[in-house]
Amino acid sequence: MKILWVSAHPEPKSLNAALRSDALAALRGAGHEIRTSDLYEMRWNPVVTADDFAHDPTGRLLVGARSGRALAEGTLAPDILAEQRKLGWADAVIVQFPLWWYGMPAILKGWFDRVFVEGYGYGIRREDGSTRRYGEGTLAGKRAMTVVSFGGSADSAGPRGINGPMDEVLFPIHHGIFWYTGMSVLPPVLIDSADRLPAEHYPGVAARLIERLSGLFTDTPLPFRSQNGGDYDDRFVLREDRAPGVTGLRAHYADAESGTCGPEAELPTHCAV
Amino acid sequence: MKILWVSAHPEPKSLNAALRSDALAALRGAGHEIRTSDLYEMRWNPVVTADDFAHDPTGRLLVGARSGRALAEGTLAPDILAEQRKLGWADAVIVQFPLWWYGMPAILKGWFDRVFVEGYGYGIRREDGSTRRYGEGTLAGKRAMTVVSFGGSADSAGPRGINGPMDEVLFPIHHGIFWYTGMSVLPPVLIDSADRLPAEHYPGVAARLIERLSGLFTDTPLPFRSQNGGDYDDRFVLREDRAPGVTGLRAHYADAESGTCGPEAELPTHCAV
Repeated sequence: MKILWVSAHPEPKSLNAALRSDALAALRGAGHEIRTSDLYEMRWNPVVTADDFAHDPTGRLLVGARSGRALAEGTLAPDILAEQRKLGWADAVIVQFPLWWYGMPAILKGWFDRVFVEGYGYGIRREDGSTRRYGEGTLAGKRAMTVVSFGGSADSAGPRGINGPMDEVLFPIHHGIFWYTGMSVLPPVLIDSADRLPAEHYPGVAARLIERLSGLFTDTPLPFRSQNGGDYDDRFVLREDRAPGVTGLRAHYADAESGTCGPEAELPTHCAV
Repeated sequence: MKILWVSAHPEPKSLNAALRSDALAALRGAGHEIRTSDLYEMRWNPVVTADDFAHDPTGRLLVGARSGRALAEGTLAPDILAEQRKLGWADAVIVQFPLWWYGMPAILKGWFDRVFVEGYGYGIRREDGSTRRYGEGTLAGKRAMTVVSFGGSADSAGPRGINGPMDEVLFPIHHGIFWYTGMSVLPPVLIDSADRLPAEHYPGVAARLIERLSGLFTDTPLPFRSQNGGDYDDRFVLREDRAPGVTGLRAHYADAESGTCGPEAELPTHCAV
């Protein structure tokens, strides 16, 4: 299969870089084709500006409309087009990053901001005017998985940990970007206490990552609900008979009723009530 | 009072820019002093690199350690120091942005990534080795509020809306950045359906923003729990007798037990179970 590995760490000798190197070797050894976007090495520009949309640089910059027009007319900046080609080629996308301030490093956030333009990442209409998103879209049929290192302990990122459960912290990426654009999302690979990982623990962490990658095309994705699958009403609100009484991010997992997550779970992939 | 207004929109004639202009006029009219960081106008560099830390550019880049040393030795990049000075000056910080892919535009994310270095934003130790964060820190005593425009409807960003409740989507910013560094966080000002706001609705939106700003120093902040206030155990996990059985982001509101949020709330500031 074809795998795009997107990464965003400034140090080529980092834990992230070592894990990436070992993971890519394992994936190649398993016969997969690999392409990479090492955003720091590429000196990726993360800032959306009018320069992204060569055509019609005058007038108010309405980012959605302008980007959609540039996509349609083939005038998006070459670096954006190159990333879209990589995505189009891939069967699966791995996005690896250190968690900075509970989100992606800016250089990676700006990869999504710039590449996922209107008509590509969002604003895709069916003939009846409804939107293709959350389970449908340009990237449907592909798989996605995050590999996230963070400084906190596993406990502090657990169901009642002060940093928030990592599945909810990552929800805007998993659900709001990957699932939004149609991709099936696997539970993340989480590497806690990354700033103080003893060297002797490294082989175990790398082995766990490689084990998870071996299931990239076979593991069960997170059970996010499809927008157009009947669970939502025409205001995009979850119907009352789905997960009755459940509010918040967790309501958008199809198994939100089943109670699969509790304080005993070490690093839950999602927390149902 | 002294207010720092940070904003991140590429278009000077945008809805965001108009609201900012009207809000700043109202704040000045009320006697406040204003400083601004218009990140697009400043051409802010959002990418953390070794260049941020002039001293000791050789060796592995451990971002935390290197940035903390540069802070201590006064060798942080001048643009970072200028923003820290503005923050130090301010009694309150407004952070205004259009929601892109359920988060901040990259240029704004990289303002936090670069300015909130170790020893300033995190990694601040007491003499006993415990950390000062989540209610304590460099920015304690200041207030913070986000002003966020987004394309979705209010329904779709409500308690059971498909985009996720906005208070949970913004939790990593409110709790993970502002509260983490000690600031008291006000409920956000949310501007829904921003891509299709009829011109005749603008005065009402601006008036609502200005009304909220009039309470900047008097309104009740979000009731986040203090790390060192007794609610968490020594693993930073919420004690069992606090919000029993509640998991997820909402557990970290001190009133998580009281049930103040339900599907009937239009745009909840937080969702308790």
